[in-house]
Amino acid sequence: MSSPSNPRDGLAARLVAGDRGALARLISWAENADPRFGEEMRALHGRIGRAWRVGVTGPPGAGKSTLVNELARFERAAGKTVGILAVDPSSPYSGGALLGDRIRMEERTSDPGVFIRSMASRGSHGGLARAAVDACDALDAFGFDEILLETVGVGQAEYEIVSAADTVLVVLCPGAGDGIQAMKAGILEVADVLVVNKADLPGSDRLVLDLEEAAHVRETNQKRGDDGWHVPVIATVAGKGENLDEVARWIGKHRAWLEQGRLARARAEKRLAHVRAVIDERLDEALWGNRAAGGLTERARGLLAEGRPPYDVVASLLQSILAGRGLPQASENR
Amino acid sequence: MSSPSNPRDGLAARLVAGDRGALARLISWAENADPRFGEEMRALHGRIGRAWRVGVTGPPGAGKSTLVNELARFERAAGKTVGILAVDPSSPYSGGALLGDRIRMEERTSDPGVFIRSMASRGSHGGLARAAVDACDALDAFGFDEILLETVGVGQAEYEIVSAADTVLVVLCPGAGDGIQAMKAGILEVADVLVVNKADLPGSDRLVLDLEEAAHVRETNQKRGDDGWHVPVIATVAGKGENLDEVARWIGKHRAWLEQGRLARARAEKRLAHVRAVIDERLDEALWGNRAAGGLTERARGLLAEGRPPYDVVASLLQSILAGRGLPQASENR
Repeated sequence: MSSPSNPRDGLAARLVAGDRGALARLISWAENADPRFGEEMRALHGRIGRAWRVGVTGPPGAGKSTLVNELARFERAAGKTVGILAVDPSSPYSGGALLGDRIRMEERTSDPGVFIRSMASRGSHGGLARAAVDACDALDAFGFDEILLETVGVGQAEYEIVSAADTVLVVLCPGAGDGIQAMKAGILEVADVLVVNKADLPGSDRLVLDLEEAAHVRETNQKRGDDGWHVPVIATVAGKGENLDEVARWIGKHRAWLEQGRLARARAEKRLAHVRAVIDERLDEALWGNRAAGGLTERARGLLAEGRPPYDVVASLLQSILAGRGLPQASENR
Repeated sequence: MSSPSNPRDGLAARLVAGDRGALARLISWAENADPRFGEEMRALHGRIGRAWRVGVTGPPGAGKSTLVNELARFERAAGKTVGILAVDPSSPYSGGALLGDRIRMEERTSDPGVFIRSMASRGSHGGLARAAVDACDALDAFGFDEILLETVGVGQAEYEIVSAADTVLVVLCPGAGDGIQAMKAGILEVADVLVVNKADLPGSDRLVLDLEEAAHVRETNQKRGDDGWHVPVIATVAGKGENLDEVARWIGKHRAWLEQGRLARARAEKRLAHVRAVIDERLDEALWGNRAAGGLTERARGLLAEGRPPYDVVASLLQSILAGRGLPQASENR
């Protein structure tokens, strides 16, 4: 949009040439919703879709970061390259502090087959899930074989983030209390593979059995079983590297199962959700942002200041938006 | 919109007459983004703004629910009526299970001066923060003196929810581990009053001192101090009812301070954010929902299926939306 550079010398070309600085820059553009991101991605479009995207979520303390590190080490030993993206939607509170270890790792990694990046949301309208997909696309275009998309907690935002992955691991551990028991009811919704980490702690056998039963009940209820994928429950001790091969094997099995037929459609639906998120985010910015034409913010403020009921203000503004009178002219790059 | 009932016999009139069933129904409409909600609220507009809205957030296990219950008991003893709204944005995982206690309480409350309601998000595009404001408006219109808006965890979604309150309590407790230490950096952003609950546990004195120092550093850095409000740190043992009077007193002090000048503007900004959220939610529904005219979903799907790069699809659709060609005609009730 405002870029003075020639696209031929742009980040896309540098990224294809293996320039990690260009990759980092492109991810920053994704994070900041910079319009140049989409321009560069046009040139990279043919390179998207080769990486396998693995989402990793679960409650704090379950050992997700350790598991991701060990999984990356395992995949590296098998000759694969790995991109790691750690995302923290709780950052309006934490200031991204929960990502501290990841940020330090980013600086330390010397293996050219690994790229680590963390992302935190900066505002309430963060578009973090959208940015995470964009960052995965950039890692994919760069050529990583596998992308590990890790969240730092559990919640609506994390759910949206990992939903974009091809295979979702949900990581739990024994003894983390009632929050986890409570989560079990809904957790199979997103999990393709369940991992009980810290399986050397008391209570892990019970947790494995409980989860297996919950998975079975769910399949019996026909809510999931009809698609033919049975969610496995795998016990690991990631800190000691135990059973990571089993996790990797099940990721591979899930991939093979998807590739037998469902993958194209699943990815198309995820891509559609991504496009919808980008459009909604840009529409919000076009309507309400600092540079928004039409002065919607001022009009809303004025109507509210007159004492109009909020839903009357909504109706009035929405009508003018939908009639095309509240919108700025479309610029050619948006 | 599709309501056949005469608005004169509607929920608004019943709510004004003190009908708790009408209040419950109105909150359900808010939860479901039912267009009838806005119609009823028009008649109630003059009754909004009298209740004091207190947001309560903090990590799981800090004792928020107990604190809210005891605070409600304290306010009741002082002759105030209290509405409690417990909100769970993690519910795509938990199925609302974290709200279990609250749901059971809803059924048990016999005090007509207390109303308890829980809300959980049902999908990824939940609009839960928007619905929480609507529910607070309904409780406000009903006539409750104080509204306690409680979240079950900490994260971006919770941040958005409590930001709508007049006074925000952040509840921590000693010994809850590194997550909380990490949160301290950012937690003063939203807190008007900091509560160290379970203050009979080891480490509470240290936590109080740490938080006081963090609050002081923040004020010294002029990021907050220039507005004249000093965030207090209060030690409580909510389970034993200890020091709840102190929490109530500080809520009152914060209220008095806001009422000296900043309240009108603060509420106007919060109302503006609410109107923006409603408009964005309805616009998303108008563009992408099941009954959306213009077939945006099908057009996006088609363009993607042709192999067009996602950001080209975004640009193409956004241009037609902004030019007013991708939108349905505004109906009179939206």
